[in-house]
Amino acid sequence: MMNLVEALLAGDRLALSRLLTQVENDTQEGRSALNELFTHTGKAHLVGVTGAPGVGKSSLVNQLALHYRKQTNKSIAIIAVDPTSPFTGGAVLGDRVRMRDLAGDAGVFIRSMASRGTLGGLAHATAAVTQVFDAAGFDIVLIETVGAGQAEVDIARLAHTTLVVEAPGMGDDIQAIKAGILEIADVLVINKADRPGLEHTERALRGMLEMAHPVKHVFQHHGKIEVVESPIGAQENTAQFWVPPIQKTIANDGTGIPELAESIDKHVRYLESSGDWNLRERSRLETELDALIQDTLTTQFRSSLPEEKYDRALVLILERKLSPWEAVKALMNGRKI
Amino acid sequence: MMNLVEALLAGDRLALSRLLTQVENDTQEGRSALNELFTHTGKAHLVGVTGAPGVGKSSLVNQLALHYRKQTNKSIAIIAVDPTSPFTGGAVLGDRVRMRDLAGDAGVFIRSMASRGTLGGLAHATAAVTQVFDAAGFDIVLIETVGAGQAEVDIARLAHTTLVVEAPGMGDDIQAIKAGILEIADVLVINKADRPGLEHTERALRGMLEMAHPVKHVFQHHGKIEVVESPIGAQENTAQFWVPPIQKTIANDGTGIPELAESIDKHVRYLESSGDWNLRERSRLETELDALIQDTLTTQFRSSLPEEKYDRALVLILERKLSPWEAVKALMNGRKI
Repeated sequence: MMNLVEALLAGDRLALSRLLTQVENDTQEGRSALNELFTHTGKAHLVGVTGAPGVGKSSLVNQLALHYRKQTNKSIAIIAVDPTSPFTGGAVLGDRVRMRDLAGDAGVFIRSMASRGTLGGLAHATAAVTQVFDAAGFDIVLIETVGAGQAEVDIARLAHTTLVVEAPGMGDDIQAIKAGILEIADVLVINKADRPGLEHTERALRGMLEMAHPVKHVFQHHGKIEVVESPIGAQENTAQFWVPPIQKTIANDGTGIPELAESIDKHVRYLESSGDWNLRERSRLETELDALIQDTLTTQFRSSLPEEKYDRALVLILERKLSPWEAVKALMNGRKI
Repeated sequence: MMNLVEALLAGDRLALSRLLTQVENDTQEGRSALNELFTHTGKAHLVGVTGAPGVGKSSLVNQLALHYRKQTNKSIAIIAVDPTSPFTGGAVLGDRVRMRDLAGDAGVFIRSMASRGTLGGLAHATAAVTQVFDAAGFDIVLIETVGAGQAEVDIARLAHTTLVVEAPGMGDDIQAIKAGILEIADVLVINKADRPGLEHTERALRGMLEMAHPVKHVFQHHGKIEVVESPIGAQENTAQFWVPPIQKTIANDGTGIPELAESIDKHVRYLESSGDWNLRERSRLETELDALIQDTLTTQFRSSLPEEKYDRALVLILERKLSPWEAVKALMNGRKI
């Protein structure tokens, strides 16, 4: 009998579904599958899509998937993450809406993930699910997240290309809050571009882009130092140079979707020619390696430490008789507490 | 000559200033001072104040400090944290505005902290600075943060009482984004309550409170199971039961400040009578102990590991010849890579 990993690599969609559940729940089987699958990863283009609730991310992701299916025949995985609430656990996103257009197409696979426990846990689970899709041979993985917090930033670190989606009429205050989010954007999308307030939103975004990106760039070219004016406005992105373009879309009727897809393709070419693709991969995998080292060391240490001893140390800390530093020293040296 | 720690404990403000800088920069001297100071902590009431830019947090914190100084003679430390941007480092907050009212009062100490490096690093540095103020004998530490992300949630975990500040006229969309932030609120403040849109904001907040808190609460009382209707609206908080009250203020002229201070005092009494104070302390110090164990283990391991070996493992991972799990196993067992 073929095991799940072999079945997945052979294109079995049921095996994919089952493995995703194992991996999401962080079971022993899920972990060992991730380990086996790892050598098959590193091929998919990971695209993050983030933005506030109500800007139409789901429709946009839906339309992008349809576009890619029609124009390129690339296979598409969609991961819909909802970390809205770090405390009560978010709602499962409405998959049925998408299903109407994408149902029955074996080249599209949709997976919803709600917040489970910590935000850190969600970013971790999303990374794992992404690896499964990558190993299963999906060409593009669209990772959709709701909100404007640290979880989005973490998930964006996962993606090669991050779209930040806005909509007209959301006011200046929101823009200010999302200053941090804007900085992770590779492509800015103003969806619902038929709504009033489009010009205002575009102006606000351009203003923030100008603050986020220096006006002049100095770099070496054929051994000479050159100064380049920021191409903001002109949007002349080159092989070595990327300023987030602003794309206007109306996801409901498909307006602007081909242009958005073209922007995404351009960004991939930029990542490859500039060496940024490899840099992002390296930094991502280094973070993963470090987290795993930390995890393994801590688990080992805690399992070798008698629970009563840890509890005793914690009580002494609570009573302010021992500082956390002294406690750690004592616990590590096996001293009596 | 007295060292900095002794001078701080003796009430020397210059020593306080110097130690804060050491601690913020995470120097060896700062770390050893924190260790020595730890047994003197655990007395201050930590109050977090968070909310979007423009709601008037600084004025509110200013007025609260003035109120406490006039009414109670409690000493007040203010930590102003600006983690707006996780990538470029936030601006230093305008301290001079506050100085006008609070200058010359030795019972008030203000410290600004801008984002440095990671968000996690900022939460860590804020926790350390808070401990210094606590050890220095400040009765109340007001921790002010800008924004609506994970950093605020982390900093709120530090505080005994968290105020979430809103202002009228910021629209429903923001409310939706901040669903997670609302859940960390112990007291909700609508500042700028003289602005149009007050009723709308109040209604929206009440609506979110009702979603966040169950309408009925079941608990044991003298051995019997009792069901209590949620006191939302009535705001009848009891010794065992807390639903965030909504306080309206106009920080510019001081309206509502005494009532807000009274709410904060009530929350302290609730924390003490319900046992929540001890629970929060325990969970906070346990998190700190675990982080320190993790840190120490990782630092020890990395310093015993030849750099070339780590780099070789990373390259093999990048080339997909080795999975991160296999790499960690090999590195930990001292196997050849």
